[in-house]
Amino acid sequence: MTNQKNHQITLARRPEGIPGPDDFTLRETPVPSPADGEVLIQNLYLSLDAAVRSWMKEDCSYFPPIPLGAPVRSTTLGRVVESRHPAHQPGDYVVAYACAAWEDFSVVAGDGLYPVKASPDFPLHYHLSVFSAMGLTPYFGMLDIGKPQPGETALISAAAGAVGSLAGQIAKIKGCRVVGMAGTDAKCRMLVDELGFDAAINYKGKNTEQLSREIAELCPKGVDIFFDNVGGEILDAALLNLAMFARVAFCGAIGDYTKNGPIPGPYHYWQILARCATVRGFLTLYYKDQFPAAIAEMKGWLDSGQLKFTDDISDGLDSTIPAFAKLFTGENKGKLLVRLTSEDL
Amino acid sequence: MTNQKNHQITLARRPEGIPGPDDFTLRETPVPSPADGEVLIQNLYLSLDAAVRSWMKEDCSYFPPIPLGAPVRSTTLGRVVESRHPAHQPGDYVVAYACAAWEDFSVVAGDGLYPVKASPDFPLHYHLSVFSAMGLTPYFGMLDIGKPQPGETALISAAAGAVGSLAGQIAKIKGCRVVGMAGTDAKCRMLVDELGFDAAINYKGKNTEQLSREIAELCPKGVDIFFDNVGGEILDAALLNLAMFARVAFCGAIGDYTKNGPIPGPYHYWQILARCATVRGFLTLYYKDQFPAAIAEMKGWLDSGQLKFTDDISDGLDSTIPAFAKLFTGENKGKLLVRLTSEDL
Repeated sequence: MTNQKNHQITLARRPEGIPGPDDFTLRETPVPSPADGEVLIQNLYLSLDAAVRSWMKEDCSYFPPIPLGAPVRSTTLGRVVESRHPAHQPGDYVVAYACAAWEDFSVVAGDGLYPVKASPDFPLHYHLSVFSAMGLTPYFGMLDIGKPQPGETALISAAAGAVGSLAGQIAKIKGCRVVGMAGTDAKCRMLVDELGFDAAINYKGKNTEQLSREIAELCPKGVDIFFDNVGGEILDAALLNLAMFARVAFCGAIGDYTKNGPIPGPYHYWQILARCATVRGFLTLYYKDQFPAAIAEMKGWLDSGQLKFTDDISDGLDSTIPAFAKLFTGENKGKLLVRLTSEDL
Repeated sequence: MTNQKNHQITLARRPEGIPGPDDFTLRETPVPSPADGEVLIQNLYLSLDAAVRSWMKEDCSYFPPIPLGAPVRSTTLGRVVESRHPAHQPGDYVVAYACAAWEDFSVVAGDGLYPVKASPDFPLHYHLSVFSAMGLTPYFGMLDIGKPQPGETALISAAAGAVGSLAGQIAKIKGCRVVGMAGTDAKCRMLVDELGFDAAINYKGKNTEQLSREIAELCPKGVDIFFDNVGGEILDAALLNLAMFARVAFCGAIGDYTKNGPIPGPYHYWQILARCATVRGFLTLYYKDQFPAAIAEMKGWLDSGQLKFTDDISDGLDSTIPAFAKLFTGENKGKLLVRLTSEDL
């Protein structure tokens, strides 16, 4: 590897709002070497996830913030180049969950790697999208927290996103009435016409009261399951419409990631008590042992056409920053990945 | 009953802050008559509960607000005087959960009454205190939501109150380390010296950051169970100290009941996701079918001295308003009841 260089995107400053080119620096460094217990991987695909934006904040909570000057921490799909860990051999494919970075090569702790295999049945990058922890987030969130029953009503925020679109389709498979919330009329039409949602709400420019009224109209028996990717006013509007004994799968708060300073929780937090509701936060990696069974079930639904899923792939490390911004402007069309290889895998 | 009069306390205006005499009117009316399906009861004891304060607000959520000019809705323990409902006979004792009022006589729907029996083993008014839905709130909240495991840490807000003191003692019975929060040093001493709590925090005059630091010191492995009666800054401080997979039993938000206007939810709501925590609201009446078994277990703990409980009883309808205020100033010493009878029951 001595002739090769590593290109990496580092965090130049803490972004305000949607991250742009000035927040990052592209630099060339030597390819690093693994220490004992570590593995050098070549990153083939980067996963662009909203959570990364929260790691750029100084007061990031569940992970340490990305230090200024360090490469941007990321989940990637890579190939082992050199291993000083007994579980990994050169040539193996691995997913490095939240421990690699936006760069060509990463050195990571071998214990943190999740091994995956190429399959003749689907492209390798599915392990970073529909069969990744991201793709399985709606699976576990909807099934283990939402516990959908036929005839119940499920409401999904950011429903046109990678996680939300799967969450809604899974609720539909389980016999729920499914209402999605998205930020454009085109996305709302797509949810109903292409993904089989029963109804959709365009939330753009509407306040809690307006949203609450629209939810009430489309969910006349109340919301039994709220799959929350967004937080903020949408969460408040959903809380106002919870059915008794509702379940809220608290999966993310993308609406808050670009804000700084103290962020008030939902103004209608009280509804959790009034409706005897359950709000449960979850991080999909804690379900790791159940990934193979979940992937098998998801694959069955994909093959039968009950589940539809799209990747939004851009090419080259240079495309990372503009592609990442699409997560927050809502321009992405499916799961955002960056491809760093020209191989057909 | 024709010669008797009914005395009642009606809501004269929507209170600001802690309710006082000017917020109510005492009036004399004829004793009402039950219609078909209804029952006339003589109220022997009134239960003074913080939730009643929230019913006095115009934007009360889970119950309709008490109309201006109407008697103040309350839970009472009464004796059936006249019944037009097949399940209730004159002389029967009943608890009227949130459907009677601060008055001598109430007419209530027979379906809403919970029958209780006098016992030689304990005073009748226990059915309105330690064996009531209030007394069983910490039982179900701690056991069904908190799910305490030996060696875990339980944190209790308003721990010197009727609900909190029981919640902490039940966690202790289940082998937890128990830390209580109360508003005076004397109450904190009482929690540790008399009720067997491991430690106590006086929260008065402290902000979220200070409280969070004190909780961190006393709960070095994090808070596995937070039994929340209070909301507000105490909730935020607790959220900052949750252990992974923590459970929050959301039982009340007494700190918010005397506030008007939009109340922001917890600023650290995000911690629910970061800690994979579960927040569950509950209303004890939904456990009604399990009351007899719960009372039997609680009685065993009381008899063995593992559970201690005090009632704070004042006499006469006139004592209601000053006694009710004690809930919000923290002056009450145990479960607040008003006795409206001179019989020894």
